[in-house]
Amino acid sequence: MVTISDIRAARTRIDRAVHRTPLLHSKTLSGMSGFDVFLKAENLQKAGAFKARGASNKVFGLSERERSSGVVAASSGNHGQAVAYAAARVGARAIIVMPVDAQRAKVEAAKCYGAEVVFCGTTATERLERAEEISRETGMTLVHPYDDPDVIAGQGTAALEIIEDLPDVDAVVAPIGGGGLISGTAVAVKESRPGVKVIGVEPATSNCMGVSIDRGERTRITTSTVADGLRSNEPGVLPFAIVRKYVDSLVLVSEDEIVDAMLLIMERMKLLVEPSGAVSVAAVLAGRLPSGVRRVAAIISGGNVDLQRVAELIVSRRA
Amino acid sequence: MVTISDIRAARTRIDRAVHRTPLLHSKTLSGMSGFDVFLKAENLQKAGAFKARGASNKVFGLSERERSSGVVAASSGNHGQAVAYAAARVGARAIIVMPVDAQRAKVEAAKCYGAEVVFCGTTATERLERAEEISRETGMTLVHPYDDPDVIAGQGTAALEIIEDLPDVDAVVAPIGGGGLISGTAVAVKESRPGVKVIGVEPATSNCMGVSIDRGERTRITTSTVADGLRSNEPGVLPFAIVRKYVDSLVLVSEDEIVDAMLLIMERMKLLVEPSGAVSVAAVLAGRLPSGVRRVAAIISGGNVDLQRVAELIVSRRA
Repeated sequence: MVTISDIRAARTRIDRAVHRTPLLHSKTLSGMSGFDVFLKAENLQKAGAFKARGASNKVFGLSERERSSGVVAASSGNHGQAVAYAAARVGARAIIVMPVDAQRAKVEAAKCYGAEVVFCGTTATERLERAEEISRETGMTLVHPYDDPDVIAGQGTAALEIIEDLPDVDAVVAPIGGGGLISGTAVAVKESRPGVKVIGVEPATSNCMGVSIDRGERTRITTSTVADGLRSNEPGVLPFAIVRKYVDSLVLVSEDEIVDAMLLIMERMKLLVEPSGAVSVAAVLAGRLPSGVRRVAAIISGGNVDLQRVAELIVSRRA
Repeated sequence: MVTISDIRAARTRIDRAVHRTPLLHSKTLSGMSGFDVFLKAENLQKAGAFKARGASNKVFGLSERERSSGVVAASSGNHGQAVAYAAARVGARAIIVMPVDAQRAKVEAAKCYGAEVVFCGTTATERLERAEEISRETGMTLVHPYDDPDVIAGQGTAALEIIEDLPDVDAVVAPIGGGGLISGTAVAVKESRPGVKVIGVEPATSNCMGVSIDRGERTRITTSTVADGLRSNEPGVLPFAIVRKYVDSLVLVSEDEIVDAMLLIMERMKLLVEPSGAVSVAAVLAGRLPSGVRRVAAIISGGNVDLQRVAELIVSRRA
C-alpha cells in the first residue's frame, strides 16, 4: 500500500521538478453551486497536468542502472507527457505508447520533451500490453499510469498542498480514470485529516471504479466519454483497494455536464481545462457532494486539449 | 499629471478590491522569443481585466455626495465592467454606455454587477459623447476610460507589482488603446526604476498613439482591429503627454500576430486571454523590443472574450 509518509517523501523528491499550483477561490462557482469553491489548478502544472507529480516521483527514484536503460509508458496523453518530462529531467530515454486517436497536442508535447512515440490501438488495455512488451524486450522500466505505489504517492502531493493552503476544507473532489489521482488524494487526506471527505468523480459513461466498488471486485467495462483522459476500462489493483478503504463517495457526471463545466471554467475563471479536468467541477455544480460539506476543493486535473477540439466543444454547446 | 506618489496612494486605496495578479514565467514563450518572458496575468483580475484597478481608484475616491449621484462610463466592455464592479462595491448607481456591437459576455457581466447598460454607436467617440450627455443631464460622475489622472494612477498599480516581483526586469510591455494602461505603467516604472524600458504596443490597424507621437500632436484616425478593446480613435490628452515624456518605444503588431499570440497563450499557458490582451505577447514573440533587453514582463491586459468568438478565431487560424 501507500502511506502518508510515502507522499511526504515524494514531495521532497519532486520538489524542484513540479509547480506548487495555485488554489484559486471562485466567487462565480461558489455563487452558482452554494458551496465555497476552490480550484486546485493542476492545468498549470508542468507538462499541463497533475501526472508530472507521479511520473517524476517514479522516475527520480530509479537506480542509476534503471535510468540508463530508460523508461516506457502507456498513455492516452498526459501520463505520456509527464513521463517524457520526468525522463528528460534526468536524461533518461523514454518511449511512450499512445492510442492511434491521441490528441495531436499531447503527441507533440511528448516528442517536444524528447520522447519516442509508438502508436497502438485505442484502449488503455491495448497500449498497456504493448508497453509491457517493450519493457520485456528492452529492459526499459515500465511506468504504469496508476497501478504503482510511487506514482500514486506522487499524485498525492497535490492534496497535501490543498490541506496546507486551506486547513478548514470540508471535502476534496478529484476525477477518476484508472484511479491514481484519487488514490494519492485519499491517502494524503485520510491519513492526515480523517474528517475531510474525499469524493471521486467519473463520467457516467466511463465508470469502471464505481461499477467495481458496487460489485466488490475489479470489473472490466467498455467506455466512451468526451473526457479522453478518463477512458479506463478497469481500475488498478492498488487504486481499487485504496478507494474501497478511504473514499467517502463516488459520483457520476453526464457528458453535457462535463463540457458545460469546462466552458464555464474558461469563461469565468479564464483557465483552459481539458474535459477530464472539468469533471470535479461538474460534480460540484451538480451538487453531488455529501451533506454537511461547505468548503470544497476541486482538482482541475489538466489543461491539455487541442484548440480545434475546444472550438468544436464550444460550438456543440453554445451555437 | 500623474506621479509615482499617486500610484502608491492608489494601491493603498484599491488594495482590498483588486487581486495582486500572478507574474507567470513562461519557458515556452522564452524559448520561442529568445527573451526571458514573464506574463502579468491581468486576465485573472477582478472583472477580468486591469481596468478594475483604475475604475476602483476613481470610484473609491469620490465624495459621499458624488457617490450618491452615481457614475457613468463609456466603454467597449472592460472599462464598463470595471466601473460596474467598483460602483457595486460602494453601492453606487452605474450607467454604462456600450457600442451596439459589444461582445455579449461584456454586456452581461456589467449587468451582472448591477449596472444599467445603454447602447450607442460603434466608435469610442460616439459612446463617450453619449456618456458626457448623461453626466450633464443627471449629475452622475463620468469615469473616463483613460483621460483621468485617478484612472491612470490605478492602472499603474500593476506595474508596481511587476517591479516588486521581478526587480531585475529589463522591460515592461503593455498594450495601448486610449493610453490609460501604458501611462500608468510608464509613470510607475520611470519614476521608480528609470533604467527599465517601457514599450507600448498597438495593432498596426489601430495605432492612434503611434500616429500622434510621430506627428507631434494628438491625431484622430479610423480603426479596425480584432483587438476590440484597443479601437480608440484618438489618444487621451494626459496619456499623449505621458507617453511622449516616458515611453521608450511604440511598436506595431499585425492582426494575425495578435490572434496567434492569443492562441499560443491558451495552448501553452492554459490561460484564456482576449485579443487585446495578447498584443504585448505578440510584440515579444515578433522580437520588437529595444536592444539590450533580456528579461521582459508583458502585461496580459484582459480575458473577457465570448467563447463563440474564441471558436471562430481558432478555426480562422488552425483549420
